[in-house]
Amino acid sequence: MVTIRDVARLAGVSVATVSRVLNNPSIASKEAREQVLQAVATLGYRPNANAQALATQSSDTIGVVVMDVSDPFFGALVKAVDTVAQQHQKYVLIGNSYHIAEKERHAIEVLIRQRCNALIVHSKALGDDELSHFMDQVSGMVLINRVIPGYEHRCVWLNNVSGAEMATRLLLSQGHQRIGYIGSSHGIEDDVQRYQGYLQAMTQAHHSAVAPPASWRAQSSPDLQGGEAAMVELLGRNLHLSAVFTYNDSMAAGAMAVLKENGINIPDDFSLVGFDDIPIARYTSPKMTTVRYPIVSMATLATELALKGAAEQLAMGVSHCFMPTLVRRHSVAPWQNVAPVTF
Amino acid sequence: MVTIRDVARLAGVSVATVSRVLNNPSIASKEAREQVLQAVATLGYRPNANAQALATQSSDTIGVVVMDVSDPFFGALVKAVDTVAQQHQKYVLIGNSYHIAEKERHAIEVLIRQRCNALIVHSKALGDDELSHFMDQVSGMVLINRVIPGYEHRCVWLNNVSGAEMATRLLLSQGHQRIGYIGSSHGIEDDVQRYQGYLQAMTQAHHSAVAPPASWRAQSSPDLQGGEAAMVELLGRNLHLSAVFTYNDSMAAGAMAVLKENGINIPDDFSLVGFDDIPIARYTSPKMTTVRYPIVSMATLATELALKGAAEQLAMGVSHCFMPTLVRRHSVAPWQNVAPVTF
Repeated sequence: MVTIRDVARLAGVSVATVSRVLNNPSIASKEAREQVLQAVATLGYRPNANAQALATQSSDTIGVVVMDVSDPFFGALVKAVDTVAQQHQKYVLIGNSYHIAEKERHAIEVLIRQRCNALIVHSKALGDDELSHFMDQVSGMVLINRVIPGYEHRCVWLNNVSGAEMATRLLLSQGHQRIGYIGSSHGIEDDVQRYQGYLQAMTQAHHSAVAPPASWRAQSSPDLQGGEAAMVELLGRNLHLSAVFTYNDSMAAGAMAVLKENGINIPDDFSLVGFDDIPIARYTSPKMTTVRYPIVSMATLATELALKGAAEQLAMGVSHCFMPTLVRRHSVAPWQNVAPVTF
Repeated sequence: MVTIRDVARLAGVSVATVSRVLNNPSIASKEAREQVLQAVATLGYRPNANAQALATQSSDTIGVVVMDVSDPFFGALVKAVDTVAQQHQKYVLIGNSYHIAEKERHAIEVLIRQRCNALIVHSKALGDDELSHFMDQVSGMVLINRVIPGYEHRCVWLNNVSGAEMATRLLLSQGHQRIGYIGSSHGIEDDVQRYQGYLQAMTQAHHSAVAPPASWRAQSSPDLQGGEAAMVELLGRNLHLSAVFTYNDSMAAGAMAVLKENGINIPDDFSLVGFDDIPIARYTSPKMTTVRYPIVSMATLATELALKGAAEQLAMGVSHCFMPTLVRRHSVAPWQNVAPVTF
């Protein structure tokens, strides 16, 4: 690897002069500039990003911590961050945290040590105290899909409870009463909030006689395989459900595959509503009715806030709560409890 | 941000002593060690990763360049790299290149400037000369899904032609003759090779009277939307195809959605074979017959090779070509040209 010392030697100048020419050319002499740039070209020298970061105590990378980049929801999040990063000539450093406290902490610490001047963090396992301590140290750190009291201007989050209520009310409005909930087994706040929204809608519905029993809820990993496993579990319990609201679209797509394999028609025999509106929701058969999570807009805003925070230009007293919206497609049909349930 | 100078001041020692204690404790005195570590704890000092990287001319990050991390195939690739990285206490820095030469070049250069000591690069737009020049400079750089003559021991690739031949031969063996090809519009080598495999199988088949005309090929973006658009295009041309081989599973899933919307049953009226075997292939209805691209194994090997290369321990004279395998599910059925084609 060619170093700055090799450039200085060939150019016949000091290392300090090379550094001045490369980092602050306006204060270097024309002669020094020409000698140094010629030596740089001859040797194929690349300025060391770590040296530049060290000099300025920042770097040209934006850090992002997500649960798992191979999950389509987080893939969309990272892509949105990357789009903003490219507009600012910055690069994205990602850490996968798998919703495990130790990995979340380690990912954040590594990115801070890299002197990322902007950090977008999706953290679910760490407590408010620990995250606010990190945010106190790093002005460019922003949380996505979470809000911490006192840090609202540095958090971008969604009203999960409302989204779940909307989805469940849609099913109730179509005559469904025995509505199950397929949730995430990761034990994270989102699942608690979406289950809460489902429960609120179920118990408030005047034509719903009782609160849904715990057996109507099944939990698994928040992906295609998990949705498949949870639907198998619910079918096996023989609960005569006519619909489910699912934690996310991947789980809904997995559940749809199980229903079809068991000869249960969607939506005639069984209705589903997903959550997120990732691309797969438009390509299931039938197309999935879901709750839209505006992750691209949210991640874009979070990245812009993080860059502003890094530049100490963040406005206080603003909060960034997004609302979900219902996307009606074809996985929900009216339910008349006249035909015998086919399962 | 607390600096090494603050630590030295509080500990009452020189900056060099602090550095020695943190980077090379065995040569520091016991007294200095205690003073420095106490000051580090009191101030909450974090060693600057850029300073450490500068000192060692390497970093604790592994770089990976992919087309687009939000594409499930590349998501799986990055996750496999990340798994190996975690085993080595390293972090992953990703760059999206979108198959554009300038972005591929920039992503590689940024990662080199970050002094990533291992680099896994999925490059399709840059020429062999430019990539081999990068590889000459960076011993830990490995290519995935590409092979450059003379650098076989630092390339991990798949025999695309064989995979496409397998898929097409399966359709031919089931009596299909009018088989279309849905390809990627990114103009990359993979698409050329898969089309070549399709053409070879088609022209070699003794019961295929003529080479398939160019109109049997439709190209679009290699994702769900692209598969949808390409299938709409092929149906619109009224070619009486009974099957298609698609560039990847995402395109096949998009094509399946169009067929179903047009009342064309899969596989009775129309057969499809995908490529990659990403998770979605097991959750379409019917489940998709596809060609398995062992991306997790390949990305794992590539990362291990890159780490060995960074340590100058890479064996020469080995090559790492993987073979695809056929995964038979339910999107292919025999074709008897007796019933009139329904479209």
